[in-house]
Amino acid sequence: MSKPKVFEKPVGVKDYLPEAVERLRRLETDVLACMRRWGYREIMTPTLEFYDTVGVASATTDRKLFKLLDRWGTTLVMRSDMTAPIARVVASLLKDTPLPIRLAYHANVFRAIEEEAGRSAEFFQTGVELVGDASAEADAEVIALAIASLQAAGVRKFRVALGHMGFVQGLFEQMLPNLPEMQEVLKDMLLRRDYVGYRDALKRLSIPESVRQDLEGILRLRGNREVCDQALAMSHHEMARAAIRHLLDVWDVLHAYGMIQHVIIDLTMTGDFNYYTGLTFEGYASDLGFPVLSGGRYDNLLGLFGRSAPATGFSLKTNRIMEYLSSVHEMHCASSDEHILITYTAQLRSEALRYATELRSHPNVVVTTARIDVADAQEMFRGQSYDRIIPFE
Amino acid sequence: MSKPKVFEKPVGVKDYLPEAVERLRRLETDVLACMRRWGYREIMTPTLEFYDTVGVASATTDRKLFKLLDRWGTTLVMRSDMTAPIARVVASLLKDTPLPIRLAYHANVFRAIEEEAGRSAEFFQTGVELVGDASAEADAEVIALAIASLQAAGVRKFRVALGHMGFVQGLFEQMLPNLPEMQEVLKDMLLRRDYVGYRDALKRLSIPESVRQDLEGILRLRGNREVCDQALAMSHHEMARAAIRHLLDVWDVLHAYGMIQHVIIDLTMTGDFNYYTGLTFEGYASDLGFPVLSGGRYDNLLGLFGRSAPATGFSLKTNRIMEYLSSVHEMHCASSDEHILITYTAQLRSEALRYATELRSHPNVVVTTARIDVADAQEMFRGQSYDRIIPFE
Repeated sequence: MSKPKVFEKPVGVKDYLPEAVERLRRLETDVLACMRRWGYREIMTPTLEFYDTVGVASATTDRKLFKLLDRWGTTLVMRSDMTAPIARVVASLLKDTPLPIRLAYHANVFRAIEEEAGRSAEFFQTGVELVGDASAEADAEVIALAIASLQAAGVRKFRVALGHMGFVQGLFEQMLPNLPEMQEVLKDMLLRRDYVGYRDALKRLSIPESVRQDLEGILRLRGNREVCDQALAMSHHEMARAAIRHLLDVWDVLHAYGMIQHVIIDLTMTGDFNYYTGLTFEGYASDLGFPVLSGGRYDNLLGLFGRSAPATGFSLKTNRIMEYLSSVHEMHCASSDEHILITYTAQLRSEALRYATELRSHPNVVVTTARIDVADAQEMFRGQSYDRIIPFE
Repeated sequence: MSKPKVFEKPVGVKDYLPEAVERLRRLETDVLACMRRWGYREIMTPTLEFYDTVGVASATTDRKLFKLLDRWGTTLVMRSDMTAPIARVVASLLKDTPLPIRLAYHANVFRAIEEEAGRSAEFFQTGVELVGDASAEADAEVIALAIASLQAAGVRKFRVALGHMGFVQGLFEQMLPNLPEMQEVLKDMLLRRDYVGYRDALKRLSIPESVRQDLEGILRLRGNREVCDQALAMSHHEMARAAIRHLLDVWDVLHAYGMIQHVIIDLTMTGDFNYYTGLTFEGYASDLGFPVLSGGRYDNLLGLFGRSAPATGFSLKTNRIMEYLSSVHEMHCASSDEHILITYTAQLRSEALRYATELRSHPNVVVTTARIDVADAQEMFRGQSYDRIIPFE
């Protein structure tokens, strides 16, 4: 293959120029401050982890992991999310800390991409994990914090959709008890939101018409609390009914938070069945076709690291939120600091540099430059707008 | 080889628990704010770069680079510093921005390590680059900012030592004109601070005693401004003399900054001759055997990316500074926020959760928990000290 040109960078990664960094930093600071006020303390973990531990436990498919070998021949991965590394820490460094444990993070994560078509190989996630609490209050807390985090980020119009892995799982076990492979096919279609494929697959099945209609009916289970009543009427399977009762409990707690206007029920929504074990949720900003946050309950992950515990959490898709806020002009990073350029001659150097130090302590932004006059300075710094140029000459 | 245990992580990388993250974040915020006031705007670049561009241009030796292959067979590296990536950006995305350009960064960088002996494979650097200004004022500005950054970080006692690649280079060319290989050997010993080896090598050379004494004399060229006078007396080589005159100019500008009490001259100090091209400097905190910052002029790097320009900069060794501040107890992250635990019964859930929201806006840190009484809560949260527990029951 040809050598890359000197100015190129790998596919799917990006540079953030100062304006973009300011927006990203604003988002990071505001959201982490919100999480902190809810008792979630920030943690940082390494970029590189062992493939056999964190890599295997992560929710990312194997072919999307960036892998490399260390000097001792062990396979490493660049972290693809923060949930598995945090589970490792909770089970090791924090093993003597009593549950529940509340942790927050803001981190770059990595996904190998298969074609040069606009996807990101490195992007930021900002999120929390609540480990050690299986209650509906815990699920509602992370959903409420997800809502508060979106608000802290400056997203004004959004919806958080709640689903539950147990409902679809229970309903399929009830209605397609002898067709486990077909269950997997249908689950996969729901996961990929391929509703046309889902309907076609049902049509080709030799099952009673009433069962087919019920399974198609799942696709209409989106809306407010009454969706849960329809779901309860549809299923006598204990797993499915327990899922709905749990959703109702969570709904009631979110009502107590005063946040119910941001929430809908969407029982067609499922997460990865190998990973999520209960309630799942996704957040959508208005007019956007993709989620800006996702989360849910993953009660089996901690056990892989030797400290079995229920857990739930979410992550904001920080880059998408930044792009969204930029597009709707809702992200203002205007700082009130004055930007000052001080020019000086060698004779007045001491006075100029000391005045710069004084101005910086206010705090202003001050650049100093020697040996040029004001007109040259204006030319030299065209495009870098200074509020004031102070000549010492 | 054996599989890693589930709780293990790769050699040389670390987890930062919340207390450590608070210290690191404090350092990051304070130092970046200082750099910003000097007109240096933060930039972020990708973790992965092409080996053939940024990897080759970096100052890191090849065997210390973490390498991997992308899906198209091109070799990638995990960035080993921020200087080469920033040079790439200045020559590409910022190619139409007039010089000088002032940029700051706080980033994790990666160095493959060869043995399991306490070295870090991933660590943080916080620094600046000033591109497009070859003057002594530019060198002095980044040194003054390095001093201001150490002060912003909370380091109280420190020294910044100034050296110059051109002095040793010129002196060797003058005194060992026909021994280029021996010049390299001696430079390498100075770089590694192997002064015993340097003296031994000189003894074995068949050179006039006066030359040997002069070359040994380099080792005594440490101190204040008068060291430069001794150096000028020692050499008539134009490169060496120009280096010393430049150092004197920088000294004078640092005097104008009012920072001369933090600075010494150390002409025995050299950087990597393949990378640095002029003045170099290192900062030492009191009682520490290793530098907490390093920097210098690298006028040849930008040309590798197609936009020839003089450049200078420095990076703080952020992890070492954090460890140093912790060890001298100069790092206080005590926050004045109150930490409150609210417990509630199902009947009083709405009141409790709304009160939590109100308290968080002040801002306090508030954790809520249902269905346990105060004694249970105290047991549940032992080790996580709350200032107050408010029961709703």
